[in-house]
Parts: sequence; C-alpha cells; structure tokens
Amino acid sequence: MATPAKVTKTEGKNNHDAADEQADKEQQEAIEQIDEVQNEIDRLNEQASEEILKVEQKYNKLRQPFFKKRSDLIAKIPNFWVTAFVNHPQVSALLTEDDEEALQFLTKVEVQEFDDIKSGYTINFCFDSNPYFDNEVISKEFHLNDTGEPSSKSTTIKWKEGKDLTKKPTAAQKGKKRSHDDQESFFCWFSDHADAGADELGEVIKDDIWPNPLQYYLASEIDEETGAGDEDDLDEENLDGEEEEEEDFDDEDGAEDDDGDGEEEG
Amino acid sequence: MATPAKVTKTEGKNNHDAADEQADKEQQEAIEQIDEVQNEIDRLNEQASEEILKVEQKYNKLRQPFFKKRSDLIAKIPNFWVTAFVNHPQVSALLTEDDEEALQFLTKVEVQEFDDIKSGYTINFCFDSNPYFDNEVISKEFHLNDTGEPSSKSTTIKWKEGKDLTKKPTAAQKGKKRSHDDQESFFCWFSDHADAGADELGEVIKDDIWPNPLQYYLASEIDEETGAGDEDDLDEENLDGEEEEEEDFDDEDGAEDDDGDGEEEG
Repeated sequence: MATPAKVTKTEGKNNHDAADEQADKEQQEAIEQIDEVQNEIDRLNEQASEEILKVEQKYNKLRQPFFKKRSDLIAKIPNFWVTAFVNHPQVSALLTEDDEEALQFLTKVEVQEFDDIKSGYTINFCFDSNPYFDNEVISKEFHLNDTGEPSSKSTTIKWKEGKDLTKKPTAAQKGKKRSHDDQESFFCWFSDHADAGADELGEVIKDDIWPNPLQYYLASEIDEETGAGDEDDLDEENLDGEEEEEEDFDDEDGAEDDDGDGEEEG
Repeated sequence: MATPAKVTKTEGKNNHDAADEQADKEQQEAIEQIDEVQNEIDRLNEQASEEILKVEQKYNKLRQPFFKKRSDLIAKIPNFWVTAFVNHPQVSALLTEDDEEALQFLTKVEVQEFDDIKSGYTINFCFDSNPYFDNEVISKEFHLNDTGEPSSKSTTIKWKEGKDLTKKPTAAQKGKKRSHDDQESFFCWFSDHADAGADELGEVIKDDIWPNPLQYYLASEIDEETGAGDEDDLDEENLDGEEEEEEDFDDEDGAEDDDGDGEEEG
C-alpha cells in the first residue's frame, strides 16, 4: 500500500500538528487494517468475476447451435442484414447509398466472443460475390491484451478497380450521397483502429443487433418514430410515475425537482 | 409476434409486386422460424441472468462480514467519509463548504443492495449528533418495481432551526459558498427524486466509492491530477500502443485514424 498522502480540506478540527501521536498511530493502524479487509473484499470480487465468467462461457456455448440455426434461416431472406442495418438508427446514420448497395451482398454476420469473453471479439461479415470487392469474408477483431490494452485489426478489403468506397467520391459521384458530401463510407470503419477500446459500431453490432437482429429487420421506420419498436422497449416506458409514500420514508415536498431530466423517455 | 412491417430501402432489386408469392411465403416462414430460434436464445439469456444473479447474491452475502469489519475500522478514523467525498472528483463538486462541515459528523455510510439485487438499493448515512439536524440516519432508497419503473425515496431531514442547508442562503451567508452563489447543497439530493432510474450520485456511491472507499480517503488531490490514483487505474493507462500485425489480418494503413478519441486517457 502506498503511504497515505491524505489531504483533508476539513482540517483545523483535528490537532494534527505535534500532539496526539498515539491517536495518529491508532488511525494509521486502522488504515492498514482497512487495507487488509479491502484485500479480502477484492479477493471475493475476483472469485465472483471468475464464477460469473464461467456461467457466461457455459451459456455462450449453449447459444452457439441456435446462432448457427438462425444464420441458416437468415440466409434464406434476401437483404436481411442490409435491412436490419438500415432500420437501426445508429447504424443507418453511418451508411451512404453506395454502402447500402454493397451491403445487399452481405449474407451473414457473425459475432464470435473469445473463449475467455473478456479479451475480445470478432465480427465476420460474409458476402456473396459482388461488383465492389473480392473478399468473401471481411472481419474486424477487437482484442484486449494481458495488460488490458485494446487494439483492433481488420481484413484488408480487396476493392475492385474503381470501386473503393473508402476513397473520397468524385464530383460526379457526389450527387448520389445521402447526406452531406463528405460522409465517410461504412467501410472506412474497417481501417479505423483509433477507438479499439470503445468501438461504437462494434459494440452496437455485438450488444444490440447480434442478440436480436430480427427486431431490426422487422422494425419499420414508423415504429422507430413512435418509439414502439418491440417488446424489449416496454420496460423503458412509463418512467415518470410518482412513488407513493411508505413506511418511515417519505418524499420531501420536492422543491428541487426542477431538473426535469429523465422525464421524457420513449 | 407482430406482423412484419418491413421497410426495405433497397427495394427494386426484388420483384415484390405480384409475382413470386411462393418466395414471399418461404421468407415469411423463415421469419417465423427465426422468431422461434430467437425465443430459445432469449430463454437461454434469462437462464444465464438467473445463474449470474445467484452468483452475485452468494458473494454479496460473503462480503457482508468484511463490510461490517470495514465500517467498524472506518469509525475509528475521524473525518474518514468527508475526506473520501472531498477527494472524489465527482462528489466533491457537489459539496458546499457548509456541506463539508455537516459531513464531518458522518460516521458511517452503508450500501445495501436488495436481496434480488436487480430491484434496487439503499444508502444509509449515519451521523453523530450535530448542530444541523436531529436524524441519526438519513437514507435514500432506489427501487425498481415489477414493471421496471424506477423510484426513489428518502428520510425526511429534521433540520434544526435556521440550519436547513437546502434552503437558499441569505446574502450574508453567500460569501461562504465555494463556487458560484447558487450552488445547491449536497443534502438537496435527498429530496430530488427526478432521476431515480439513473441517479448519478447514488451510482457513484454504490459502484465507485463503496467498493473501495479507502482509495478515496487516501487519494490526495495531487494524485488525482497526475492520474496516479491507485493500482485499479493501471489497466486504463497506455491505451495508445499500436497493434502489431498478425496472421491474415492486417491494419489498413489507417488514413482514417484522424479521430483522435480515446488517446488521452489517464
């Protein structure tokens, strides 16, 4: 344990100058004992994490055959993935019209967590042969090394001649862009390794789309506007009810409820 | 399952008008089968959550005697809690000078998660007799009901005559305030139930301070500035290393790494 470099803004109450060395000593001992207790707590926390990891690993394995089955079924539905992406508010914002055309050849998306889960995951994008690139699979992998340092790496995309969507469009092509002229292609994400530790798109795909892509395939834009996406959203509605008073607790007559946050979900 | 209200922005490729009813029917069947598979996955997710909850509950019980021991030791150290709060960057910002004086009488903080963990927690603040209020314990409880609706409630603070820190200060008192004149007292938090579902201070105390209050008691402001708080921070440093190339993956020669986010942690 480091030497306590305590800075108490509330000094003056204590006589920290010369006197009461005994009290100081007792406090120092108490601090050391707290540190020991804290070590016991940390040890329990680690044990808990390990047990939880084992449960997660077990269910990760149990889910695999269902993911496989789901992928096989999804393959029967043309444009499943591009539709799911287009219907996802965050992902949709990243897609240019050209991206959407290229993503019509996307037949399978796979999220594979590493065996120890904590150390990372890979997302595989499988494509039919298409006029844009030669790859059948484009992957992006997110990895935390032993010291917790994040990194990511991706398959190099083998663009066909003149088809590289990550290159700035020519003036002629600019007219086709959906929003402002300079919007980057979705495919730039594969070569962007700046946010490996908190890759927003990677996490949206892993934590939001992959657990239930069907809801996004089925979600029309009208549903999104009214916030009536699917049953998973129900829990987040009706947040503004008032708590009735109970037992020896009661609401102060809240003159401070002027913040207004969190009152307009859904 | 709701009727699919699919909106594919990429139509025109398909002949969705009159023809190919058979293909449509097959797709509809595939969607229904995906939904069934998804239900199986959801069932596994629920089972996993239940098992994880049981592990958490087990360790919550195992930690209790250590928390008790820690509280007894902390009680031997004058101003432990006010020092920890003052040294915590987020909590410190919420404290007026008057708050700091009142919090010198805070002898014990206790976080109690409900037995099922998910449904909420209570934070108890125990005080020595003091010139501000008559309560020995002031609690704030956060609760999620069966439908996931959050609410919070608190003990009513029995302020002594003229000592209510949640009332706006008089002109004479204003000179004492640390920052801008209108800073609210920390104690206003007890009667603020607007953010019950995501109470920032409640979560900081539960998830950040309570797991290891000693680190904040010991953390001097100098440590905070250099980011050398304690060993828990080590994992978050050195985030800017570059990943070496491996196997069939390689970094595109990142012309898009212009974002710069996540490069200046610590």
